[in-house]
Amino acid sequence: MDITQFVAQSIGQWKSQRSAHHLAFQHFEAVTSTIDITALEMSDPRVIALCKAYDVPLEAAVSPFHMRWAGESDWDDDAEPVKGETVLVPVPENAKCGKLLREQGYAEEMAAVGEYHFTEDGAFVMLTAYDRAAAEERIWFVNPKLRMRVSMIKTSGGSGVVTASFSSEIKQLQSNDQ
Amino acid sequence: MDITQFVAQSIGQWKSQRSAHHLAFQHFEAVTSTIDITALEMSDPRVIALCKAYDVPLEAAVSPFHMRWAGESDWDDDAEPVKGETVLVPVPENAKCGKLLREQGYAEEMAAVGEYHFTEDGAFVMLTAYDRAAAEERIWFVNPKLRMRVSMIKTSGGSGVVTASFSSEIKQLQSNDQ
Repeated sequence: MDITQFVAQSIGQWKSQRSAHHLAFQHFEAVTSTIDITALEMSDPRVIALCKAYDVPLEAAVSPFHMRWAGESDWDDDAEPVKGETVLVPVPENAKCGKLLREQGYAEEMAAVGEYHFTEDGAFVMLTAYDRAAAEERIWFVNPKLRMRVSMIKTSGGSGVVTASFSSEIKQLQSNDQ
Repeated sequence: MDITQFVAQSIGQWKSQRSAHHLAFQHFEAVTSTIDITALEMSDPRVIALCKAYDVPLEAAVSPFHMRWAGESDWDDDAEPVKGETVLVPVPENAKCGKLLREQGYAEEMAAVGEYHFTEDGAFVMLTAYDRAAAEERIWFVNPKLRMRVSMIKTSGGSGVVTASFSSEIKQLQSNDQ
């Protein structure tokens, strides 16, 4: 698995079930959402702007994509937006690792750069450092129609994990599959 | 990581949050439980009986242990027992893989043998085939006090995943830690 194959497999619409575990107070949150992942052209102004913002030459980027999610949480007090979108631009260092530029992070609403690598069993693992927190994500395909994701939000300094969450994502049939 | 280290790290009491995703009908189930994992002697009659039942010579087994769990589910219709206990006996083939004998499986209430291996990043991965289903589990330590687990129950024939579940397990302080 490399980043080009990983992005190609991810393109499409996904129905997601996400469970968040807020570890300190053993709280559960359940979110169902629809995630749309679409390929972008290298010439897309959002891709060009993101590369420029991070001083990355366009030639170093591959497989840029757009993600949009809209969901419903069972937790009313949740401050996180359940709706959002972002542009992502992979910048591989080699076949196994690289950086992922993002317009907007999951944990904080600001641009972010994640460091990703692929494990020997084909999982995509990404670490993102924010100002006050760090996020670790592991995404893998069980089969082409089923993707799973485990995310952890850690305090920026130490190893303390604040929230652990798990998503199972089922690919929806496209009209050209039918 | 090998099985002896993995079992040693697992010994203790854990507070667990488990979320199950029933994929076909996008149902969430939340379970909080307490899991007690204790080391057993090789001379324990339950260990000897389990090895005998599977024709495994006692000398091939290492680090037998006992697991007891008791929890509360938010799902009344749940047929799975929320309370249970089992004896587990690892039978390593080499440092990276082997079999795990169990008195009783998770997915079906019968004895089972799982095939386990460790990934390069130290996760324990186990496949267990039952009569009518197969289970795949991945367990890893984020740090010595935090363990995570992703399980999938698949239909025995195909690759169809029926249930995906995620546990975050926090080690409780032992009296001798204080």
